Formats: sequence, C-alpha cells, structure tokens
Amino acid sequence: MKIGVLNGPNLNLLGTREPKLYGRETLADIERSMRDVARSLGVSLEFAQHNSEGELIDAVHAWKGRIAGAVVNAGAYSHSSLALRDALTGTSTPFVEIHLTNIYAREPERRRSMLASAAVGLVCGFGALGYEFALRAIVAHVSKKDA
Amino acid sequence: MKIGVLNGPNLNLLGTREPKLYGRETLADIERSMRDVARSLGVSLEFAQHNSEGELIDAVHAWKGRIAGAVVNAGAYSHSSLALRDALTGTSTPFVEIHLTNIYAREPERRRSMLASAAVGLVCGFGALGYEFALRAIVAHVSKKDA
Amino acid sequence: MKIGVLNGPNLNLLGTREPKLYGRETLADIERSMRDVARSLGVSLEFAQHNSEGELIDAVHAWKGRIAGAVVNAGAYSHSSLALRDALTGTSTPFVEIHLTNIYAREPERRRSMLASAAVGLVCGFGALGYEFALRAIVAHVSKKDA
Amino acid sequence: MKIGVLNGPNLNLLGTREPKLYGRETLADIERSMRDVARSLGVSLEFAQHNSEGELIDAVHAWKGRIAGAVVNAGAYSHSSLALRDALTGTSTPFVEIHLTNIYAREPERRRSMLASAAVGLVCGFGALGYEFALRAIVAHVSKKDA
Amino acid sequence: MKIGVLNGPNLNLLGTREPKLYGRETLADIERSMRDVARSLGVSLEFAQHNSEGELIDAVHAWKGRIAGAVVNAGAYSHSSLALRDALTGTSTPFVEIHLTNIYAREPERRRSMLASAAVGLVCGFGALGYEFALRAIVAHVSKKDA
Amino acid sequence: MKIGVLNGPNLNLLGTREPKLYGRETLADIERSMRDVARSLGVSLEFAQHNSEGELIDAVHAWKGRIAGAVVNAGAYSHSSLALRDALTGTSTPFVEIHLTNIYAREPERRRSMLASAAVGLVCGFGALGYEFALRAIVAHVSKKDA
Amino acid sequence: MKIGVLNGPNLNLLGTREPKLYGRETLADIERSMRDVARSLGVSLEFAQHNSEGELIDAVHAWKGRIAGAVVNAGAYSHSSLALRDALTGTSTPFVEIHLTNIYAREPERRRSMLASAAVGLVCGFGALGYEFALRAIVAHVSKKDA
Amino acid sequence: MKIGVLNGPNLNLLGTREPKLYGRETLADIERSMRDVARSLGVSLEFAQHNSEGELIDAVHAWKGRIAGAVVNAGAYSHSSLALRDALTGTSTPFVEIHLTNIYAREPERRRSMLASAAVGLVCGFGALGYEFALRAIVAHVSKKDA
Amino acid sequence: MKIGVLNGPNLNLLGTREPKLYGRETLADIERSMRDVARSLGVSLEFAQHNSEGELIDAVHAWKGRIAGAVVNAGAYSHSSLALRDALTGTSTPFVEIHLTNIYAREPERRRSMLASAAVGLVCGFGALGYEFALRAIVAHVSKKDA
Amino acid sequence: MKIGVLNGPNLNLLGTREPKLYGRETLADIERSMRDVARSLGVSLEFAQHNSEGELIDAVHAWKGRIAGAVVNAGAYSHSSLALRDALTGTSTPFVEIHLTNIYAREPERRRSMLASAAVGLVCGFGALGYEFALRAIVAHVSKKDA
Amino acid sequence: MKIGVLNGPNLNLLGTREPKLYGRETLADIERSMRDVARSLGVSLEFAQHNSEGELIDAVHAWKGRIAGAVVNAGAYSHSSLALRDALTGTSTPFVEIHLTNIYAREPERRRSMLASAAVGLVCGFGALGYEFALRAIVAHVSKKDA
Amino acid sequence: MKIGVLNGPNLNLLGTREPKLYGRETLADIERSMRDVARSLGVSLEFAQHNSEGELIDAVHAWKGRIAGAVVNAGAYSHSSLALRDALTGTSTPFVEIHLTNIYAREPERRRSMLASAAVGLVCGFGALGYEFALRAIVAHVSKKDA
Repeated sequence: MKIGVLNGPNLNLLGTREPKLYGRETLADIERSMRDVARSLGVSLEFAQHNSEGELIDAVHAWKGRIAGAVVNAGAYSHSSLALRDALTGTSTPFVEIHLTNIYAREPERRRSMLASAAVGLVCGFGALGYEFALRAIVAHVSKKDA
Repeated sequence: MKIGVLNGPNLNLLGTREPKLYGRETLADIERSMRDVARSLGVSLEFAQHNSEGELIDAVHAWKGRIAGAVVNAGAYSHSSLALRDALTGTSTPFVEIHLTNIYAREPERRRSMLASAAVGLVCGFGALGYEFALRAIVAHVSKKDA
Repeated sequence: MKIGVLNGPNLNLLGTREPKLYGRETLADIERSMRDVARSLGVSLEFAQHNSEGELIDAVHAWKGRIAGAVVNAGAYSHSSLALRDALTGTSTPFVEIHLTNIYAREPERRRSMLASAAVGLVCGFGALGYEFALRAIVAHVSKKDA
Repeated sequence: MKIGVLNGPNLNLLGTREPKLYGRETLADIERSMRDVARSLGVSLEFAQHNSEGELIDAVHAWKGRIAGAVVNAGAYSHSSLALRDALTGTSTPFVEIHLTNIYAREPERRRSMLASAAVGLVCGFGALGYEFALRAIVAHVSKKDA
Repeated sequence: MKIGVLNGPNLNLLGTREPKLYGRETLADIERSMRDVARSLGVSLEFAQHNSEGELIDAVHAWKGRIAGAVVNAGAYSHSSLALRDALTGTSTPFVEIHLTNIYAREPERRRSMLASAAVGLVCGFGALGYEFALRAIVAHVSKKDA
Repeated sequence: MKIGVLNGPNLNLLGTREPKLYGRETLADIERSMRDVARSLGVSLEFAQHNSEGELIDAVHAWKGRIAGAVVNAGAYSHSSLALRDALTGTSTPFVEIHLTNIYAREPERRRSMLASAAVGLVCGFGALGYEFALRAIVAHVSKKDA
Repeated sequence: MKIGVLNGPNLNLLGTREPKLYGRETLADIERSMRDVARSLGVSLEFAQHNSEGELIDAVHAWKGRIAGAVVNAGAYSHSSLALRDALTGTSTPFVEIHLTNIYAREPERRRSMLASAAVGLVCGFGALGYEFALRAIVAHVSKKDA
Repeated sequence: MKIGVLNGPNLNLLGTREPKLYGRETLADIERSMRDVARSLGVSLEFAQHNSEGELIDAVHAWKGRIAGAVVNAGAYSHSSLALRDALTGTSTPFVEIHLTNIYAREPERRRSMLASAAVGLVCGFGALGYEFALRAIVAHVSKKDA
Repeated sequence: MKIGVLNGPNLNLLGTREPKLYGRETLADIERSMRDVARSLGVSLEFAQHNSEGELIDAVHAWKGRIAGAVVNAGAYSHSSLALRDALTGTSTPFVEIHLTNIYAREPERRRSMLASAAVGLVCGFGALGYEFALRAIVAHVSKKDA
Repeated sequence: MKIGVLNGPNLNLLGTREPKLYGRETLADIERSMRDVARSLGVSLEFAQHNSEGELIDAVHAWKGRIAGAVVNAGAYSHSSLALRDALTGTSTPFVEIHLTNIYAREPERRRSMLASAAVGLVCGFGALGYEFALRAIVAHVSKKDA
Repeated sequence: MKIGVLNGPNLNLLGTREPKLYGRETLADIERSMRDVARSLGVSLEFAQHNSEGELIDAVHAWKGRIAGAVVNAGAYSHSSLALRDALTGTSTPFVEIHLTNIYAREPERRRSMLASAAVGLVCGFGALGYEFALRAIVAHVSKKDA
Repeated sequence: MKIGVLNGPNLNLLGTREPKLYGRETLADIERSMRDVARSLGVSLEFAQHNSEGELIDAVHAWKGRIAGAVVNAGAYSHSSLALRDALTGTSTPFVEIHLTNIYAREPERRRSMLASAAVGLVCGFGALGYEFALRAIVAHVSKKDA
C-alpha cells in the first residue's frame, strides 16, 4: 500500500522559517521520520511539495489509482482552496489534514480550513510528530475500509 | 470569428469525477459537441484547460487580439479568483460563465461567483448542454455588438 | 409533452420598460419565438404572466398533472418568494429559472434567488435568447428522466 | 509522570450512542488501550468523566500539582465552556484536545472550540485511536518542556 | 440587613491563578476585607462559591427571603448564563456585578455579560477593591429603595 | 408506556417567579394536571427538575430503556445546551419541547432553541396548558411509530 | 363564540404535497377534525385558505367584529409577511400560530416567523394534531381574557 | 396634471387601527384633505388602495401615460417589495414615499424601505399631514422637471 | 412661540457645494423662505449653524426654556452623533429631522440616522422645500401637544 | 497628588436632564462630594466639562505632567471617540471610566465603550456614588504603581 | 501654487506620544522638512492642526479658493468623520491621505478610513517620510490636472 | 544593497489594460523610472512579474539572502493570498505594498489587503509615481534598521 504525502506553500522553508513557531526540523527530516514509521507499518510513501495551488492539484490527480490515501498539509492554501478539496474528493482520495502549529491559536484567517470537512480527520499543534500521527491515522482508516 | 473555451481546475477529471454529480461525459466529449455547434454557427474554437490559476490567466492574456469572446468554466476558482476576472476585463474579453451543476443548489461556498458580475451572462445546471448554450450566447452577443 | 412558461411581476411591461436594460422585445415576441422552438422540439407550451405572487402560485397549482416541466421567470419575486418555490416543489414541477438580465451584475438585492436551489438550472443575462435555452434545457431534462 | 484524561458530557454513553458516528468502543475500552500505551511511555493515567461542567472544572482543580499534562475531550462543552478553559489555564495545565469525530465535518455549532486556543494541539476524526495520539502528544510536549 | 456574595467558577483558585492578572489575594482575603466593610455599614454577609452553574442557581434560590441584595462575580459564566440571570430576576434579587479584571480589555468572548442588563450596576478592573465598591453600591441601592 | 417529563433551571420557582409572565401555577400543580391527562391516555409519567445542566443530562441517561418519549422544558438551557441535545439524541429519546411563555415574543437571546432541531415539535406560549399538549403530542408520536 | 382558521399558500395541496413531510391528510380532513373539537368546546369555526398574501389580509379584515380569535398557518408567508402581522394586530385579533412540520428542523429560511412575536403562542411539528391544540389554546386564551 | 395616490396593505383600516399609533383619521378623511390641497395646486388626484402586492403593481401599470407623479404609502410592503419598486421605475413614475408613523422609531423590520432609493424623497412621522407634504413635494418635483 | 432651526457641518457651503446634489440656494435663502412661512404660522425662528458637534450641542442647551420645538439638519453628524441626540432628548426638545437630499439613495454610510428614533418625524429629498415642511410639521406637533 | 475629573457632552445638564434616569444631583453636587472624598484621600482635584470632543482632548493634553490619574465620564462620546482614547493613551494618563447609568441595560449603541480597553477599570450604574468609587480606584491604582 | 497641510487630533503630541509607534520627530520637524521639499517643487504650504473635528472642517472651508490641493492626516477622525470628508469634497479639494503608522497593522477600529474613498491616494507606515511622499503626490496630481 | 520588485497577476498588461484606470505607462516604463531612482539611492533592483501565485512565492523564496527589502504589487492576489504573506514573513523580507489605483475607492473586494498587516507601509492611488515612493520608503526602512 502506498500513501501520498503532500506539502503546500512555504513548507520547503521549514527549518529556517520562523523556527520558534515551526521548529528547526526541515522537510527532509520529517520525510526521514515518516519513512521509518511507514516501514514499521508496511506501507511505502510518495512525497510532493509545491508552492503553486495548481501543481498541488496536478499532484493529487497524478496519484489517482496509485495511492491508497494521503497526508495533506496544504499550508496557507488550507484556508481558501476549494479547488484542492475538489481535487481530493474528485479523485476519491481519503486524506488526513495536518498542520505543524495549532491553527486555532493563531490569526483569525488561519482558523478555518476548506479541506477539513472532506478529511477523515485533523491533527494540529504537535510539530513534526503530527505527521507520524497523520500517517498512522490514514493507514488505519484505509485498512479498516479494506477489511 | 474565433471563440475561446476555458476550463479550470479538476475539469480534466470529467467522466470519472463524481459522475452522479458531473455526468459521464469527458471534456473531450464536450469539446467534440461544441465543435459541431461551432461549425453550424460559422465560428472556430480554441480550447484550454488548466489546474493553475496563473496558467488560466496566461491563457486569457494569450487570447488577446485573437478571439472575439469566450466560454469560461473556472471551476472552483470561480468562487474566489478576482485575478482571473481582472484578466478577462483587463483584456476586454466578453465571456459567458458556465457551470455543469446548479451551483446554487450546492454548498454555500459555491453559491457566489467572482466572475459573474463581469460576465455577459451565466448558465448552470444543465451539464454538457450548458456549454452549447454558452457558446450560442457568446456568439450572439459578439455578433450583436459587431452589427 | 406540454411545458409551462411562467412570467412574474412587471414582465408584461417588456418592450417599454427600461429598454436599455431589458431590450425592446415584448413578451408576445418572446412567446412567438418560443413557440417556434417548441414546434421544432415537438412540445406544446402554456403561457401565464401575473403581477401577483398568489396568482403565480395558483398558476403552478393549475399546471399539476398537465405539464411536464416549466420555464420560470419570477421577476422580482425570485429574490424573496419561498411560497412560489413551495408551489413548484409541492407540485413536483421540474423547472428552469430564467432572467433576461445578468442578475449577478445588478443591485445586491437581486443577487440571491429563492428559487434557484430547487431549479434544474439557471440561465441569465442573454435577454430573450435565454428563454430558448431554458426551454431546450427543461425539455432535455424531462426527456432524460423519462428515458 | 501522571497524565489526566478528562471526558465530558455523554461520553459515558460510548458504545451505544449513535455507533455509526461514535463507534462501538466503550469508554472502558478506550481507557484500557490508553493504559497500554501509557505503560509503554512510562507514565501513569488518571481518568475522570462527568456530565456536569462544574464537576469537570472541579476535576481539573483537583489535578493541580499532581498531573503533568492532560488529554481533554470536553464533548459538547468544548464549543461553549470558557469556564473549563479558565480552569485549565488557571491551573497551568498543558493539554491536548481530542474529539472522536471530525467536528469540522458536522453541524456548524460543533465547528468552533472554546478550548482549542489554549490547547497544545488538537486531534479529531480518528475515533479511539485519537486518544492514543493525544496521549503521545501531551507526553512529548511535557517531556520537551522538562528537558 | 444581609447581603449575599456569590463567586463563580475558578474563583476558588484566587491567589495562585495567573497572579499577574488576578492578583495575589485569595478569596478568603477578599472575604475578610468585605466583612470589615460590612461591619462599618451595619450589614452581615453570606458567602458562596461554586464551580457549577446549577449550584450557583441553587444558591440564589436558597437566598430567597433571607437576603436584601447581592454582589455577584459569576466568572466565566457571566458571559453565557441566561439561567443564572433568570435565577436572580426570578427571585427578585437586586445585585451588583463585579469582575476583578477589566473584562473590556481582554479577549472578545469576555466582553459581553449576560448578567449586566439585569444588574443595578457593574464594577470591573480594580481587583479586590472592586468587591468593596460593589458591596457599598448594593447596600446604598437597597437602602434607597427601602427609604 | 412511560413518559419522562424534564424541567430545567428555575422552574422550581414557578408560582412565585414573575407571575405576570409565568402564571401562578406551581410545578406541582402542573404535575397534577399532567397525571390526570396521562391517566386518560393510559400512560404513566416520571418527573424530574434540576437546576444543573449536568443533572439534566444524567436524568436523560437514567431514562434510557425505561421511557418511551419525553416532554422537555429546559428553561434557559434550551437556548445554549448542545450537551442536553446530545443526551437526548444519544439515547434516542423522542421528545417534545415546551415553554410556558412565547419565547419568540421575548428577548433576542431566548428566540433560538438548541433543542428544537432534534425535537418532534414545539409548543410555547400557552402556560401550563402547553404541558398537556406536549404530553398528548409525544404519546401520539410514539404510538404512531409503534403502530 | 366564533374562531377563524386561516391557511396560507400551498396548504390547499395538502394530502398530495410531499406526503412524507406534510402527511396524507387533506385540508378538508383537518377541517372535519377541527369541527368535532369545536363542537365539544362550544365554539363555531370559519375557514379560509388563500395563496395570495393580499387575500389573506382581506380575510383577516373581514373577520373583524365577528370572530373572537384565530388559528393561523400562514405557510411560507409566515417567514416574511409583516403585512399579515399588521392585519392581525391592526384588527386586534388574538391568534395562535401553527405549522404542520417542525420549522426549526428545516431549511434556515423557515426558522424565523414574522408572526410569532404577535401570537399568543406557537405549535409546530405535530401535523394535523397541532390544529386541535391551536384551537384549544386560542379558545382557552380568549375565555380567560373574557372571564 | 394628474397625481396618483397609492395606499398599501391595512391602510383601509385607518381610523380604527391602533389609533394611538396611526391616529383617528380615516383614509377617506385623508383623501378629502388631499383633494383640497390638490385644488389649490391646480392638479387632480387618482386614489387606489390595495392589500395585495400584485394589485398595487397593476395599479401602477394602469397609471402609465396618465399620471405625472405619485404619492406612495406601501405600508408593510415598503420594507420588502422589490417588485413594487420595479413597477414604479419600470413605468418611469416619479414618486414620494410617505409613512404616517416615524418608521425609524419602530421595530427593526420597519426601518428599511425597499422603495426609498428609487423615490424623490421621503416623509414620515407626521400622520395625515405628511400626505399633504408628499403631494406638494411631488408636484414641485414634476413641475421643475417640466420647466 | 419660537422654533429653533439648527444646521450642522458644511451646510454653510450651500449654494456652492456640489450644486447638482444640494441645489443653488444658500442657507440665507432658506432662512428667508422659512421666515415667510413662520410669519404666516405666527411663530418666530432662531437660526444656528455650526461645523462643530460640541457647538451644536451648546446651541441646543442654549435653547432650553426659550423654544417650543426645532427643525434639525445635522448634516453628516446625523449618522453618528449620539451626543447630539442626547442633547435634544436631555432638554426635552421636540424636533423634526430634515435632509436636503434623499439620504436613502446615497452612500451606505448616510442611510442610518442616529437622530431619527428620537425625532417626531423625518423629511428628506426635497431640497429647500423640505425645510418648509419640517417647520410646518413641528409647529403642528407642538400645537397639538399644547392643545 | 492631583487627579483630573473629565465630564463630557450633556453632563452640564445633570439635575434637570431626564432625572428618572440620571438623578437629581447636579455636576456641582458631584464635584462637592468628590472634593470631600479627595480631602480624606489627601489628593486634590481638577474638574473640566466640555460638550466638544476637541475640547475634551485639549483638556487631557493640558493635564500632561500635572495630574497623576483621571476619572473620565465621556458621556455619549464614550461609545465612539477613538480620538479621546488616543489623547489619554498618548499622554500616558491612567484613568477610570465612569457612567452614571448602567450602560449595559440601555440602548445597543451605548453598550460598547471605545475607552474601556484603555482604562484601568469601569464603574457604572451607581449614579453619583460611582464618581466616589472611580476616584478611590484611580488613587489606589496610581499609589500602587508609585509604591 | 499653495498646498494645505491638515493635521488632526493628538498630532500636536508628536515627539512625546508613544515614540516607539509614532517616532521622535515633532510636528514642527515635519513642517520644516516639508517646507524644504515644497521649495524644491516650487509650491508654498499652509499648515493647520486641530483637535476638534469642527475646527478641521472650518480649516478646510477657509482654504477654499486659496489652495490647489491638500495633504491630510486626520488622525483618529479618519476612521469616523464623514463630515470632514464632506468638507473636502464639498469644497472640491483634491487631497492625499497620510498616516504615520501602518494603520492596517493596528487595531481593527483603525483599519477603515472614511476619507480614503474621496482621496487621490493614501500613504501610510513610513513615519515623517510619508508626508514628503504625500506632498509630492498631491503636487503631481494637481499639476497633471492643470496641464 | 539590492531591492526586489515583485509584480503580480495582470500587471504585464499595463499600458493597454483599462488605461483610464491604470494609466498608459507599461511595466517596462515603470522599471526604467525605478532604475533611475535606484541609481540615485545607490541600490540595485531585481524585477519579477508572475501571473501565478505559486511563482510569486517561488520568487520571494529565491530572493532569500540576496535582497535587503522589497516593493510588492501583488495585484488581485493582495486581497486573498495568505500564502504570499507567509512567503514574505517566512523569509523575513521587509516590504512595502504598492497599488497603482486607490484600492479604497474601488469595489469592496479590493478594499482589504492580506499583505498590509505584514508590510512596512502602503502606498496607493498615485499610479507609477507610487513605485518610486515605495522604493524610497523600503530603502529608508532598511537603512534605518541597518544603522
């Protein structure tokens, strides 16, 4: 079973971007940790990061028929992108939404997610650890459905 | 006379994307039907589909001086893209807005169009048939202006 | 198959009412054009125009069992009449909503339709031509259901 | 290190309450699973469930000086209880908010949490599995602070 | 003449709860100061503190016929409890609302009081001193009415 | 068949609480009248009144498996208690909402009920007589379902 | 004593209109049941049903001096008609508002009544049975006033 | 020059309808006073009063080509009737809006007029005297335009 | 009997200020016309114009005990000045509100008056003629009260 | 130590202005009582009252360097004057806000204070007595800071 | 060519008022810098600063016919003063709006300007330097118009 | 020192796009003028223009470590792009926001900027001249910080 991991705008800056807020781990660090967890769960991962909304949509389309579920951190697009939600629902991709920070303790414009209503569930506020939870949750969800 | 036909994010999925909602016709099927109608109206068509807002804007710019009017289904960007509206008004492109589904019978976030106030008119809810109406309407509009 | 065509308040003024906005065609002109299209589609039409919300509701009730679908331009009542929507849904009348002007490019109070969420679809902004589209759409819709 | 686990109104019904929505696991089942995880993390747990807002506040007060962090599912009080948030912040209790269901895919009145802005983070939508994540997250958070 | 003094959720934490915000005086300290003032005014006091909205209501009911007026700091329930307001008006208890902090300089959810419209008046922002003012004000109010 | 009758905060004050608004009948008077009606309908009643939201929830839980339906006057909690609604829906208890006064002719904060959307129906404005109607309505509803 | 019974738009469709929602009883059935109740209460009834807001107002005016109170189901006009409320208050007609369905469990646009604030009380959600309650309530109200 | 005077719903009740609010003068009294003023201004009047929105629209249509301007008191329809405004603007009828009471000192639902933005001006709060002012104002307005 | 006439900010510019909107008459012209009307009504006038909110309040205070009623055009302060309303109600000064233009056909920020709810009535949209109506209305109002 | 006492618009009317609401004491009476309290506290007072927002700001500026704190009743400007708040914060003047009446039990436009968020605290609803409390509170506040 | 420079409430405090926010330059310093720029542009300047809205309006009136354009920093009145905007538009004075701080990065009540929609443009956030830009911009604007 | 200049969607159309609104200068003209100013300030410039939000973000990332500050005209994305703001704050890029037109005098959807709260300041309404101001302001800002 393959799981897609999608990261949105500015997440390529991780490690140097406002480290007090986002931590010192880079996206490569997170990727490494996730691969360890994936191995223990017997699944493989496919990563993508894009700053463009359209490329994120393309990435979701490209997953079609190849991945069983996804972990999605759409960054600032989470709060506005109906098109990305359409890509995920239009390809029937089950996904878990993840944010590094607790979006409900930040500015008002970050407190609403356009993706959440279509997600299996949401994890936020635990930094890189949240990616591990999101991965475990989507694998559990897909496995249960398959059972 | 040439008419541009612009399709936005996720419309490349047509035929397999939530067929109960969007029908089983693919974008290629719609294109074929529109070419038939275009022939009978004596106009030629130029098609474009992009998942990226920026590429949709580029496409509109590229039409400048070459097309007489447009049929636009901006998909989920319809509800938020002031930039696409600016591209259409900034190039003085008359256009008809089209949606496959009745956007007013769906989720609240789909009930407002950023494009509509700049459009000649709007057609929604009739599936692929709506593209034919939109084409006829924009040709009628442009012809009247030219007369 | 018979199709009902319902016109609401002030549409009897067509031809003389703000012609820059609504055009110079009278309601009789529109009726004539629609009859031509109807003939080509093999359906018959039944017209009604009323300035009173109650009489529009009565007209819908009177259609029950006699018409297969309807084309409805409820004029200014479109924006407020839950009762007319109830009449259409209460009699299970499939209908297409039509407006001569692009209601989304006008005053804020005209940008919401109470009927749209119960309609098959909506056409606006194309003047008299929109009635033809609406007729073709409702006939296509009813035929598909019957098929 | 001791972690408090607080469950709010109606969570005592788990297992029989709308099982399609909330699953078939009882609160006792969740408690058992959490104790297994706690053992592996080297922490002990203290459980409380109350239907009364005041008793939930009393429970938080009673934890003071005895627990290092908390896992809180305040049920329907999550959406309105400023007093419970005050109890948690007034006793300087770090906590993770957990919901069995994805509250962002439910009724509007469940989409806002009064607790979230004071929480370390939030997990929702993964059923009983979410409690495990919440426990791991609060232990990680408290350990990091202590380090 | 007897005056009731009612304190709501989390006020039992006073002295240790966010002392920068709420000060270092405990509820017992406040009680002592109020008794001194009460003596000088020739009135006696009856104190109650509860974390439960229901017990606060019970306390108000229990006052009926025994107290002449009340000083009420309903804490976080001030911002939502219509039921407590009903208890106070349903028992015809004149009362003064008091808050230790200036609730209008805090989070938006604390800036509205459900009790204020039924109160004689409101004091906030002066810490423990405010209780003395509230006591003097309710005694003055009740005395004037009795005169 | 047994019917539960639940009364919320301040309803124990009936008879003396703002009699112009709520009438001079006590809760005991209402109980007596309801027992007469119950006898004529061949059902038995079980009464509960609590000022605490948590105890009202406990009462609903305690009904589970023993009552067929309920008459609920949640007083001021009607306007805010999602937790009580959850208790009623979580135990699959059909209920009729009742208010002594016409809540739609009172202050704005009383014009919305959190319970109503889950109720069979609502009666308000008829004083004690409304309890009789509510009882008849819930018995009729349950009987119909059972038939 | 004579009581008026007023039914608004689309209620003439009862029995065939969305029977799952509105039941299978016709307006004539309801009328028959109400006459039985009226007889037992020693009052006579006068029925009117209109689809036009203006005719409903005319009907209320025509009652003046002849009826003691009214039972009013204004259907979809309930949610918008200030003019009908003016007719009822302008003729000093005490009335009970009745709806067949629980309007608070339906679409948002049906959850506000323009009549309710001027009514004695409101009954909704009990189908035809509600008319009986409304009749009993208005007779009780008028009798009490007369006493 | 002929001036139309249009009165809306419930204005036929004048004299007996809430006299404290609306005064003791009947519509016939107002008509008599206006005829006196009209004579002195050298204009003739044409009166209409209807309780139905549709009949008010019909009346405006019927004026077309025969009257120079109008005095309109649309009663409760003033606050909602876009259709009546369309009738007045669609027939290019200049008009003055008049209300007997000061609508800005009444319930919130009466504080917005749908007609006002299309009117020459507005008079309210002066009882029957306002009709005289409205008449003088519309005659002055029309005369100036003609000059 | 003496009547006060108060004009607010920028009304000293009349005659040269946006004449298309406000007309070519100066404030002195209006004053002359009003004195003619006053003479015919047997009342005297006292005029004041100030650009400062505070001086307008002072002017109202200075009227106390000397004038019987007032005509008030508070210009742009009409839309915000609670303090001027307090001055008028605090001195028990009956007044008519007047605006030269139809404020309901202008920018949104001019469509609400802070004074209107305390006024006898309101006249707007008739230019200088409105001052005459306002004067007649306040004299009629005061005379009726005195009678 | 000198304390400034600032009174805003219409407070010069005290004693005669709506005495039921504001009491019979004049501003001079309040001044006398405050001087007595000030003497007992060992502070001197400086009074100012202005109806103009600009003069109130000038008064605050003039205090700079001479007063230690202030008691401010800005009357109706309290609800709108950001400029007065700027004057107080721009001169670093600690102040207590005071209102004679309970502003939270009055019209909606009086329920928000622009000053409160910058004040030490707020007293309202106790008539002239509130000035004494405000004085004691600002003296206590300034003394504590100085200590 | 003469340019007016208008400064509003509290700007006389510059240099000592919250220097972290507003800088250490006084209004006299700014005036000096502007005179240097003015000289280089060949224009003369006329300065005014007032704390009173009315005096600011008087100042604008006094400019009429003498100045070609203006630089306006209305301070806190910017966010509410329709009267000052009327003064500027009523005297046909082209102006540039200037703020020392970035008003869009401050409290919500400072994020809206009542003047901006009538201004040529707006400069904010650059401290004293912004005055230079505003001066250059208004001179460029006026010169272009004159050309 | 190098300054980045970023232009967003449709700004490549400058010169031909609605010239009445945006002027006749092309982006190349603006670039030339800015280079002249840059030379005089001793800084170099780096230009980028993209129609895609993602490419604008990429451009900001690519500036990291190379530019000292930026001038940003994000066009229509200014009103919605949290992601672009994140790119600017995530790379700690100080920037000045610039718009050719006065966005506060245009459609409501252009009156809010998502970037402004993170900007040093904002310039709008002065056409190409604004770019010069923005450049001078960012250079002054960066120089001051460096000093």
